[in-house]
Amino acid sequence: MTSLPTTDRLLLGPGPSPVSRRVAESLAAPPRSHLDGELVAILDRIRAQLTRVMRAPDDALVLAVSGTGTSAMEAAVANLVEPGRRALAIVTGYFGDRLSEMLTRYGASVDRLPVEWGQAVDSAAVERALGKHAYDIVTIVHGETSTGVRNPIDRVASLVRAHGALLIVDAVTSLGAVPLDMAGWDVDVCYSCSQKGLGAPSGLSPLAFGPRALAKRVACRSFYFDLGLLSSFWIDRKYHHTISAPLVYALHTALGEVEDEGLPSRLARHEAVHRRFVAGLSDRGVSLLPAEADRLWSLNAVRVPDGVNEAAVRAALLTDHSIEIGAGLGPLAGRIWRVGLMGSGATPENVDRLLVALDDAIGRAGR
Amino acid sequence: MTSLPTTDRLLLGPGPSPVSRRVAESLAAPPRSHLDGELVAILDRIRAQLTRVMRAPDDALVLAVSGTGTSAMEAAVANLVEPGRRALAIVTGYFGDRLSEMLTRYGASVDRLPVEWGQAVDSAAVERALGKHAYDIVTIVHGETSTGVRNPIDRVASLVRAHGALLIVDAVTSLGAVPLDMAGWDVDVCYSCSQKGLGAPSGLSPLAFGPRALAKRVACRSFYFDLGLLSSFWIDRKYHHTISAPLVYALHTALGEVEDEGLPSRLARHEAVHRRFVAGLSDRGVSLLPAEADRLWSLNAVRVPDGVNEAAVRAALLTDHSIEIGAGLGPLAGRIWRVGLMGSGATPENVDRLLVALDDAIGRAGR
Repeated sequence: MTSLPTTDRLLLGPGPSPVSRRVAESLAAPPRSHLDGELVAILDRIRAQLTRVMRAPDDALVLAVSGTGTSAMEAAVANLVEPGRRALAIVTGYFGDRLSEMLTRYGASVDRLPVEWGQAVDSAAVERALGKHAYDIVTIVHGETSTGVRNPIDRVASLVRAHGALLIVDAVTSLGAVPLDMAGWDVDVCYSCSQKGLGAPSGLSPLAFGPRALAKRVACRSFYFDLGLLSSFWIDRKYHHTISAPLVYALHTALGEVEDEGLPSRLARHEAVHRRFVAGLSDRGVSLLPAEADRLWSLNAVRVPDGVNEAAVRAALLTDHSIEIGAGLGPLAGRIWRVGLMGSGATPENVDRLLVALDDAIGRAGR
Repeated sequence: MTSLPTTDRLLLGPGPSPVSRRVAESLAAPPRSHLDGELVAILDRIRAQLTRVMRAPDDALVLAVSGTGTSAMEAAVANLVEPGRRALAIVTGYFGDRLSEMLTRYGASVDRLPVEWGQAVDSAAVERALGKHAYDIVTIVHGETSTGVRNPIDRVASLVRAHGALLIVDAVTSLGAVPLDMAGWDVDVCYSCSQKGLGAPSGLSPLAFGPRALAKRVACRSFYFDLGLLSSFWIDRKYHHTISAPLVYALHTALGEVEDEGLPSRLARHEAVHRRFVAGLSDRGVSLLPAEADRLWSLNAVRVPDGVNEAAVRAALLTDHSIEIGAGLGPLAGRIWRVGLMGSGATPENVDRLLVALDDAIGRAGR
């Protein structure tokens, strides 16, 4: 006997994000095998869609790893890092730290540039750090899911470029929600996930390697994450693994929705919804953790008001309103709520529903 | 604009296998986040279901990796292999070879016991190989998808046990389709996939570590495949990655179907369907590659009759009958067809439909 959820839940946490009805229904389209002509044609379209949404350069290798966003993070590192390579990890939160750990696991000599959680990295600090050593690789998270901070990738990328290192950018919580321009900013490697800003379920993770990164690949220890083998499947139609057809359908459908909406409109929607939420919070005397200039639109780190029991409020939202929001991680545990307004979840209606529910939850359970 | 397949295709290749309507519909159940109470309760049920279907010992760590079967293969190796460990890879086909490559990538000193493709390994050969060196790890594929051979895991396991090594068994094409008894055979590590015998879409891969293997884990270089981190998520509900809710629902539903049918009945169905297919082929003067005693029920390696154009027959099956079967790999390319009769695809009706279609395709396109 199985028992699956039957009621809807509004997913406004740090992820997974909601999926549209059309994306959900696409999961059940008739399955095809991983080398079927119809399926590989969809993979080709996904590669083109991802190239556009990431604004990847034409000569980038763009595909999706068969795993969650963390798998693409590991694929990025596994194909560029080996003992003897030196890396600078810009750590503005939990996921910057995770990147740093992966660099270490793959044998790099890693220096960390730590930034207080809730702040974006200062490009002057990056410039100073880059001046100390010759780095092969620099890693940074575009949208820090743990803090709601957006880092200034454009400025960091130009510094890294001048320094001659490769830049790996984590776009897990930014792609499809805030402006990202891999080619324009001259980013070497960029990865994301299928959920959040793109609006598909989790399980596939976009990965783009630009030409400089392709030229500096190492012999990849991992078989599953080996970019050469992934490319042999995505480009040359050779068997490497049995990609999940339902996830392929859902990602293709979600990317189609991004294009139907138009990327500029989609980003503007995320911005407007974010601002509506911030204004509503401000009316209630509640503020966000990051400074205004550093805020992600997709993930809002909301300061828990003094005297409010943050866990009780989250529980009440879940139980009484079937709304999920996230807790703080690490040093921010108990201090913030993390509210994701991403993909099909980024609507004014959801903001208004959440604000009313928050009023109720704080009033009844929060103190 | 998106365009997904709209017509049904009968998937009788080496994988992915067909999914039942109930499993397909379960993909669209209301999503929950990876740490939601309802979702983690399903994960607990999946662990119990997998423990039963694998007949894993009670003290095994059983979970599913968020990737295809190849990801579980890598997780098995990544948590047990480091430079200095010596491994014996029993290679009876393509996937035994893949295991051997992964052992090498993770730094093991690997000796290979090669077996002619189409034959099962002879346990006397295993005994001789084990006598030559002290091995830490032995790897073998239970059901070789490339050759349709079932290897005698029970006999190999007792030899490996006597030798004091750990045994890793690839059960990708055997679990849920042919008898497998991890505890009874005293297998240390066993992994599989969510499709094939289990009948879910691909994208999650069951993995079981028995107590001896748990005790001999190495510091895992991979973050995504680190068993300690996977366990922290599956057992302790700590965030590691955002598991795909639709795939979780589908696997849980498929495992529920296994239990509704009853594992003995399910295995008997696979055997009966296999025998029906073999008898039908025999009526037509067509034989299988492996000797009768060595045959998998789930994957049939069919010798292409002399003078028949194997590729044209496959193409005609696909185009005229919307039936997919697989080609031979490596040394068997052009010499065999691979016909999967697995999960919900293992029915007498599918056998009869395929035999009629094969007659037509061979008669019209095959010569």
